[in-house]
Order: sequence, then C-alpha cells, then structure tokens
Amino acid sequence: MPAPAADLTITRIDITPVGFTDPPLLNSVGVHEPVALRAVVQLSTDAGISGLGETYGDEAHVQRLRAAAEQIVGLDVFALHEIRRTVAETLAGVRGGDRHGLTGSITASGTIDRVFASFEIACLDVQGKALGRPVSDLLGGAVRDSVPFSAYLFYKWAGHPGEPDDAFGAALDPAGIVEQARWMLHDYGFTALKLKGGVFPPADEAAAIEALRAEFPDVPLRLDPNACWSPATSIAIGRRLGGVLEYLEDPAAGIDGMAETAAAVPMPLATNMCVVDFEHIPEAVAKDAVQVILSDHHYWGGLQRSRRLAGICATFGLGLSMHSNSHLGISLAAMVHLAAATPELTYACDTHWPWKPSAEDVIEPGALAFRDGSVAVPPGPGLGITLDEDALARRHEQSVRSGLTARDDTGYMRRFQPGWDPPHW
Amino acid sequence: MPAPAADLTITRIDITPVGFTDPPLLNSVGVHEPVALRAVVQLSTDAGISGLGETYGDEAHVQRLRAAAEQIVGLDVFALHEIRRTVAETLAGVRGGDRHGLTGSITASGTIDRVFASFEIACLDVQGKALGRPVSDLLGGAVRDSVPFSAYLFYKWAGHPGEPDDAFGAALDPAGIVEQARWMLHDYGFTALKLKGGVFPPADEAAAIEALRAEFPDVPLRLDPNACWSPATSIAIGRRLGGVLEYLEDPAAGIDGMAETAAAVPMPLATNMCVVDFEHIPEAVAKDAVQVILSDHHYWGGLQRSRRLAGICATFGLGLSMHSNSHLGISLAAMVHLAAATPELTYACDTHWPWKPSAEDVIEPGALAFRDGSVAVPPGPGLGITLDEDALARRHEQSVRSGLTARDDTGYMRRFQPGWDPPHW
Repeated sequence: MPAPAADLTITRIDITPVGFTDPPLLNSVGVHEPVALRAVVQLSTDAGISGLGETYGDEAHVQRLRAAAEQIVGLDVFALHEIRRTVAETLAGVRGGDRHGLTGSITASGTIDRVFASFEIACLDVQGKALGRPVSDLLGGAVRDSVPFSAYLFYKWAGHPGEPDDAFGAALDPAGIVEQARWMLHDYGFTALKLKGGVFPPADEAAAIEALRAEFPDVPLRLDPNACWSPATSIAIGRRLGGVLEYLEDPAAGIDGMAETAAAVPMPLATNMCVVDFEHIPEAVAKDAVQVILSDHHYWGGLQRSRRLAGICATFGLGLSMHSNSHLGISLAAMVHLAAATPELTYACDTHWPWKPSAEDVIEPGALAFRDGSVAVPPGPGLGITLDEDALARRHEQSVRSGLTARDDTGYMRRFQPGWDPPHW
Repeated sequence: MPAPAADLTITRIDITPVGFTDPPLLNSVGVHEPVALRAVVQLSTDAGISGLGETYGDEAHVQRLRAAAEQIVGLDVFALHEIRRTVAETLAGVRGGDRHGLTGSITASGTIDRVFASFEIACLDVQGKALGRPVSDLLGGAVRDSVPFSAYLFYKWAGHPGEPDDAFGAALDPAGIVEQARWMLHDYGFTALKLKGGVFPPADEAAAIEALRAEFPDVPLRLDPNACWSPATSIAIGRRLGGVLEYLEDPAAGIDGMAETAAAVPMPLATNMCVVDFEHIPEAVAKDAVQVILSDHHYWGGLQRSRRLAGICATFGLGLSMHSNSHLGISLAAMVHLAAATPELTYACDTHWPWKPSAEDVIEPGALAFRDGSVAVPPGPGLGITLDEDALARRHEQSVRSGLTARDDTGYMRRFQPGWDPPHW
C-alpha cells in the first residue's frame, strides 16, 4: 500500500509563452501566421512532483494565467473546485476584452474555464504521478487503448509569402485538397477527413468534398466553413452534400443561424463556435440548433468539465466530437487521456498535429505516436510525457523572436491583400 | 513520492443483506415496517486494500448485485467506465420487473445505475485509501468542511402495532409534528425542516407546515406528499404555502402533473420521483416541470454520475438538493463526501439518520457526527469509515430474522387496516 500523499501543495507555477512554425493555412478570417503561439504551464509541488499543462499563448491570456497562478500557489492539487473558484475571483479583477479569436462567443464563465483548464491538467498530471497511474484513470479509466483522430485538411499557399515553399505544397482547389488528403492518410492513417472551408465560394468547397468522396469512398468526411455562410447558403450546400458528410460543422453563425440550417439539412450540424460554454447549451438544446458538440478541454475548463460536457451531450442526445487548435504534445497527451476515458465520444478527434514540425515540440519524443490514425494512451504516470527543458527554451525564444502577441489571421492576410475582408456567402 | 499503485485489481466482492430497526413512519403508500433493509458491499483487491459500499437491500436488487459482482471481479478499481459497462451487460441478462418501490419511474439505465453505484463507491474508497486521501478529493476536493442536513419529519404512530411505544412517540397532527421538529432541532441542530406528507388530507398537512412556520420562523421548510395530490390540489396548496416553503417536493405525479403545478405556484418544485434518471431530464427541462432535483448517489449511479447530474442542474439553471432513504453510516459517509465536493449543491440534504438506532450501525462509531445540523467530512483515507464485522453479522441476522425480502409499506399497513389503499387527493 503506497504511503499517503498528504503533501501535494502547489509551490510554484511557471508560465512560458512558446512559438512554433506554422504553415500558411487558410480560413475564413485570413491565414495562419508563420509562428503559432502557445503557453506551457509547469506546476511544482512540495512533494517534488511537477505537472504540465498547455494552453493559448496570446499575451492577454498569458497575463490572466499569471495573475491567477499567483493566487493558486499554496493550494492543494486535489482542491480543483477551490482552484477554479480562485481563478474566478482573480479574473473578476482583471477581466476585460477577452476575445482572442480562437473560438466564437466569449463569456465570463468561458474565460474562467480557459484560464483554469491548463492548471487543472497540470494538477491531474501531479495526481496521476503521485498515484502511479495515467490521467485517464483519474477520469474513470480508458475505454479504448488508442484514440482515433481525423485528418485536418486546409486550403493553403505553397509557402509564406517571401519565403521558400514549405514541405506541404499548395492546396487551392479540389485536386490540391485530394492530394493533401492522400499524403495525410498515407503518413498517419487517419480514419476521417475534415476540410477547413470558408475560403473559396461554397460551391467550390462542396466540389472539394465531392472530390474527396470520389477518391476515398469509405472515409467519413466533414466540412467546416467557420460560420461564414448564410443560413440559405448553408441549407443549399447542406442539401447538396446530403449522404456525403458525417457532419457539417458551423456552416452558419449563431444559434439561430444554426437552428434554421439544422431544420432543413439532412446531416447533423456540429459546432465549436456557437456553443463554447455551458451557458450556451440550454438555448442550443431548446432550438435543436446543433446535433454534435466539439469539446475542447482548453476552453471547456479542463478534463473534468469536459466530462461534464460529455454527460450533458449523452443526456440530451447530442453527439460529441473534439476540436483542436494548433498545439504541441502536452495538449495532445491531455486530449488522448480525455478521449480515451470518454465513452460518449463517438467521432474521431480533430488535430492540427501534422502541420507542426516534429522537431519543434517541447516534450521528449516517443510518448505519442500515430498508428492507423490513432494515438495510443500513454501508460503514465500522469500525462505520461516529459518536458524537454532545452526545447522549451528554444520555443520560448521563437515566440519572442516572432514579435507576435496575439493571433491575427486577418491582419496577416491584409499584408498581402490590402483591404481584404473575411468573406460572407 | 508514494510507490505506484499499479495493482488494485478486484479479487472478491461480498454482498451482505442487513436490517435495522425502523419506526412506524407514515407515508402516502403506507407505513415503514419494523425492519429496514439495506445491503453492504465489501470489495477486496489484490493490494490488500478493501472498499465499502451501501445500497438497497431488497432481494431482487441483491440478486442483481451478486450477478454483476461475479463479472466485476478481475477488473481494476480505476476502470469505472468498464465496471459500469460490465454491470450493464450483466443486467441485460437478468433485467426484469425491477420496480422496488423506493423511487418513482424505473428505467433500464436507472437499474444499471443503482446496481453500479455501490460498486463505484467501494472502488472510490479503495482509490482514496491507496492515495491516502479522502474520497471528496477524488471528486474535485471539498468546498465545505461540513455538510448541512435537513430534519426529516414524519407523521408516525407511537409504536409498531402490538409492540411497546418507541422512543419517538406519536405525531399525527400539527402539534405532534411541531413537537417532533423541536426535539430533532434540539438534538441535531438541523438547519431545515422537511415534512413527509401524503398521509392526511392536504389542508391538514398545510396546517402542519403553517404550525412549523409559526413555531420556527427562520427555518426553511419543505413538504413532500409523494406525488399523491392532483395538479389542482397541488396548485391550491402550493398557493396557500407561498412564501412559506423553500420548495414543494413532488406534489403531483409525473412530469406533466409537475409542469402544470409549477406553472401556477410561487415556489420551486423539487423531485425525486418524476426525474430519477438522466433519461427523464430532457422532457422535464423542456416542460419546466421541476426547479430542483434531489440527487441520490444510490440511484444516480454513484458519486461521479451524481457530479454529472450536478453539472446538468447548473447548466440548466436547476437547483440541486439531496434525497435519502433509510440508511446506515456507509451511505452517510458517501453522501457527505459527495455533498462536500459538489459546489452546485445549495440546499441542506435529506437524511433519515435520526430514525435509526445509533447502536444498530455497521461502522465503528466516531467517524460521523452531527453538529449544528451538519456532518464534518471524514478526513479519510477513502470514505474515512471502518466496518465493524461483528455489527455486520448482527445486522445480517436481523435481516434474516425479519423474514422481509422487499419493502412493502402498503402490505404492512393493510395488516392493520384491511382494504387500505394509498390516497389520492
């Protein structure tokens, strides 16, 4: 019988902004900048056990993280309710313009959840290490040995303007998207294909989906135009792609736009834009606006609150999938533990993983690998990953060198296309 | 740093039916029999750490527990999803007439949850012991050091027919109920008063509530007629008691009866009868049938799934309270850990505790005590309680001697009042 783990008090929290190379991936609000920002949370305890978390890296978010971290030091890693309450109290003082462009509507409780999340994960990492168990065991245990992911296809330029072409090449039409899907399926074995749309006229993107269906007749397909279509356009394209898409993700803006669309198209609608906080759920349920919610522990308040979301989805007959932003290995490990321990998750998860250079992670290699489109659950303890301090320093330097303080896909696009505005179809 | 707790495989599960003395408490379906039935679950692991659970003791339930227990042996105490899946698979074979009269509507998933619950709690007890932490720490940590409870007032006879009067005396009118409240508040310090109604004509029970209000002007009051009133009666009494009750519990039957009542009375309606399973929630929400759900880990599937219920209540703006059946100390410990780690719980919890002779528990005394109406969270590890094997043997013997195999308040009442039928007002 292990000795009691009575002393697991948080003694220190380090928050390090990091950057890594990102290709020019296109979306409805512009194009990815050359460096993606994240922040790494390192949480130390008086027992000598430390935990890791990963979250958004924009400056305003990092400031909120640091303000909350100061107040959390001294609390116990098992006192998760108390830690969240402390985050809420701290943010009541610093809250403000907190829209950072990574998801849709922002609410006060949503801000609390996205600050709390990375601390919660670092605490669960410590708990798992103290117990000698993987984090998935703290969530009810893994119900699958490995977690299936979806390829995340993007329209993209051949390279960032003024720089050499990247290794991925251009994808600006159906043939380019099919080619991108081909290598991604070959290299990773993904079991579903998601196309980020909202870049070209809707009919062109529907044609890209149809080209994917023709080329890969058995792979589930998804299209995500990031809410830049009108309900009328959403309905027209939704009907055209009936029987082709497993779900259509955020075609129209807002719960009302989604509800109008949902009532008229044959496939489920998924969202990570109009339902991104528990506060949004009652209206979405009442209006039957969405049939699948993309969970994301980074803004749903960590792994325990993501399980709460899963329970709500199961109770109200909603499907559950998983959203991704550009991320490093700490986030992937957390996503895998969560997904493994979430029986309600019935879709392959999103991930930007292939777009990140493998040499630019902050964790030691080997813990996470894609095989047949899935990532095996790290056996632990905790998240089952180890921070590479030298790599962390390099990524922090890359963040500083980039000069970026917030993601701004639109501003970056306008440097090459002055006067460009996000499209609405 | 504690050693890894890698081996926590379930090696054996013992299920022991037990009985303890119960006074002749009256309700809408009859009167409590002289012995209340429960079952104690003892779960052993290969690490030598054992865990406790307590659940319903009727024979049909015990048979289901034993069938499931056989299949669970060999699983890991952290594999809670897998354990529940195994329970579900096992019950798919033995399911059948599973109404046991302790709550309202029964569903298939509800049966799974009430069998799974005591196993889950025993597993959490083991987890906590392995980690040297209280069970509340496995639920996000205690947000309160002690958990407030409500007095549970009953109309009652002076004693079981043919036996000497019990220590509590009769309570058959407003004065008797006020007297009962007085000693219960004095002895335990409860911070709320709940009256089990459905026994006398509704106007008489409203008069009892008014008498309590006159005598105890500052104590929150609740009335629970167990769904034996029509919506018209519920509305009339609800309006009469506006401003007097903090909530009215299950006045009318079914989600529709509750919805009709809720729309016309000034206070929130609470339920542990028309919403007793996750499957019931969507319709209740859509119809705004109830404003407070009484959770009960014994039928909501254990502590983790009770947290899921709490999350749903918070999300949909429902209040959360806690239900009780006649119970022993294992259940009380689990209720206290859960309530302590549930920030969403905003009402004092129900408990039948004062009606059970203190000498008839199965746990060693000292771990659980009422002070100012609240029970301090046992510091652990695990549930923080210890089974008294001799007491367990005595309680099992009492169960056997009673000859009872299922709770039958109606049948017992008819022994003294032949032809008696549950009233409907």
